[in-house]
Amino acid sequence: MDIKITKTTNPKPLPDESKLGFGSIFTDHMFIMDHDDDGWHDPRIVPYGPIVLDPAASVFHYGGEIFEGLKAYRGTDGVVRLFRPDENGMRMKNSADRMGMPYVDPDDFVEAVKALVKVDERWVPHKKGNTLYVRPFLIATDPNLTLHGIHQEQFLIILSPSGSYFSEGLIAVKGAFETEDVRAVRGGTGFTKCGGNYGAANRAIMRSEAAGYPALIWLDGVERKYIEEVGGMNVMFKIDGKVYTPMLNGSILPGITRKSMIQVMKDWGVEVIEKRISVEELLGAAKEGRVEEVWGVGTAAVISPISSLTHEGVEYVFNNGEVGEFSKKLYDTLTGLQWGEIEDPYGWVVKL
Amino acid sequence: MDIKITKTTNPKPLPDESKLGFGSIFTDHMFIMDHDDDGWHDPRIVPYGPIVLDPAASVFHYGGEIFEGLKAYRGTDGVVRLFRPDENGMRMKNSADRMGMPYVDPDDFVEAVKALVKVDERWVPHKKGNTLYVRPFLIATDPNLTLHGIHQEQFLIILSPSGSYFSEGLIAVKGAFETEDVRAVRGGTGFTKCGGNYGAANRAIMRSEAAGYPALIWLDGVERKYIEEVGGMNVMFKIDGKVYTPMLNGSILPGITRKSMIQVMKDWGVEVIEKRISVEELLGAAKEGRVEEVWGVGTAAVISPISSLTHEGVEYVFNNGEVGEFSKKLYDTLTGLQWGEIEDPYGWVVKL
Repeated sequence: MDIKITKTTNPKPLPDESKLGFGSIFTDHMFIMDHDDDGWHDPRIVPYGPIVLDPAASVFHYGGEIFEGLKAYRGTDGVVRLFRPDENGMRMKNSADRMGMPYVDPDDFVEAVKALVKVDERWVPHKKGNTLYVRPFLIATDPNLTLHGIHQEQFLIILSPSGSYFSEGLIAVKGAFETEDVRAVRGGTGFTKCGGNYGAANRAIMRSEAAGYPALIWLDGVERKYIEEVGGMNVMFKIDGKVYTPMLNGSILPGITRKSMIQVMKDWGVEVIEKRISVEELLGAAKEGRVEEVWGVGTAAVISPISSLTHEGVEYVFNNGEVGEFSKKLYDTLTGLQWGEIEDPYGWVVKL
Repeated sequence: MDIKITKTTNPKPLPDESKLGFGSIFTDHMFIMDHDDDGWHDPRIVPYGPIVLDPAASVFHYGGEIFEGLKAYRGTDGVVRLFRPDENGMRMKNSADRMGMPYVDPDDFVEAVKALVKVDERWVPHKKGNTLYVRPFLIATDPNLTLHGIHQEQFLIILSPSGSYFSEGLIAVKGAFETEDVRAVRGGTGFTKCGGNYGAANRAIMRSEAAGYPALIWLDGVERKYIEEVGGMNVMFKIDGKVYTPMLNGSILPGITRKSMIQVMKDWGVEVIEKRISVEELLGAAKEGRVEEVWGVGTAAVISPISSLTHEGVEYVFNNGEVGEFSKKLYDTLTGLQWGEIEDPYGWVVKL
């Protein structure tokens, strides 16, 4: 790929690293590439600025939009690293396939991410926990209202310096089960990172958060009794010393953090079981005091410990409501790899 | 609503009415209104032009997008009419509720549609069958990547002079059942007009069309055996003189054409049955020669007759593959009301 770079003549001041938040500040540049009947062309890095589209552009009407999320980490050694960007590139290809959207070659995807992070390298935060969040996204731009295939697209990457979810150390949050809204069903788009999944999830997540349960557990769309995800993350349970996580069934996102943690835990000698887990099975184990720890896993938070789950008015508390040792160890290991503090035996870490 | 109108100084020439197609030509003006923490403000009609948004705008990432579709008809008496625009306004409110999006007041919705069509009235085609397609849509524009609620939105309306689906008279098309992809599931967003539903449907519709089956029948997401919709339309079956259509269950769009036809048929004394209809039940009746006619119903086509459905390699042909008398009568009645040729006993038709 021959990426044309046009640098801004008006670079912004860097933000105060102690007040970053998530996904609300953007860097000086962005990556864009266009697709039409001739395929992909004009890969370019340009100053960060608005997207200008015809009001009839498909993305505003028919949900032709998929995205990825990954991070650039400035190691304690000063080196900037990415974590498994090839996995993001492959997943975006899989998402595009399900959506009937022309895809970006995964190698080009990684090359574009690297090139953009390099141009905006000064924006990668210095404080451990803070990261440069990388948001690649692909949108359908055909400017007509027919439902006859996607030919025109834009692939963009934007960068956002973001604070740690846990600037004061890991915190466990309360959760509950969603019994009204469904996020996804097998055969649908649950395994993709398409906008529609998040649109479908929005109401319930807001409602649950307002009710004091930030960790909303999604149930399957078929039987409404098997656990699928928590909020926008995968979910794991430590029961009787073993780790359980819902098996990938088409409606669950194949998380890269999920996959990495499963590998790490197996290498620790922990038994990891991917299966369908019903609410009844989980709460049965909880009643018997066998559920040791519960946590969400995803790129943004890495680990999000869950202190309790409330079902039909009964609160089931795990690990006395505290962050568990095991969750903490997983968090330290993953972030240790990402910040270059632990040697990477997997080849997951890519230096810029 | 105090709609500020800024007219174009450079009106476009009207297109050739014999070559309109669908949804690809747009008029001189569009309606826009903005929403933020202060509510809705600045309703305006401005020259048709691009939407300019921050690349982080929610609509590009998290599927915060819902739309409606209706038409303006120039009657044989020269008067321009709308068909049940209040129903579109109410449905958009229901869609917004499911998506956790601030909604547009249905009365304001209708007022905005009328005002815009009035400004661009010269664009309403003159030939019967041709219409001015009206596309209201609501997009989430919060320029950040968090998943914490929708506060900023734009509500837009664009207009597209469009040709009849059937410029040469009604044509029946072949159909088949989708057995891999699922469009929607109860508890999800199937009953809304959100982009995600169409994103999820795109691949299968394209695949089916390429395979020679433009009428793709969607099955339910739970048991994968009950008929839900056809392509982007509701579906009806005439069996033993009665009309059957899938009951609204949360995953099926509550079509305004569907609702109107049910009313018309009941007033004709036809028994209309809304229930779950399995593939097995339909094909069982087809084998016994009891399925008289099959057709899709929606705003765009009004009626789309289906000549046959193919299942596991066997083609079940209805009405000898011809457009049925009953479908034709429904089409003539609905379009007769819409073009002001039949007196409207329902109060559905709204003169501009």
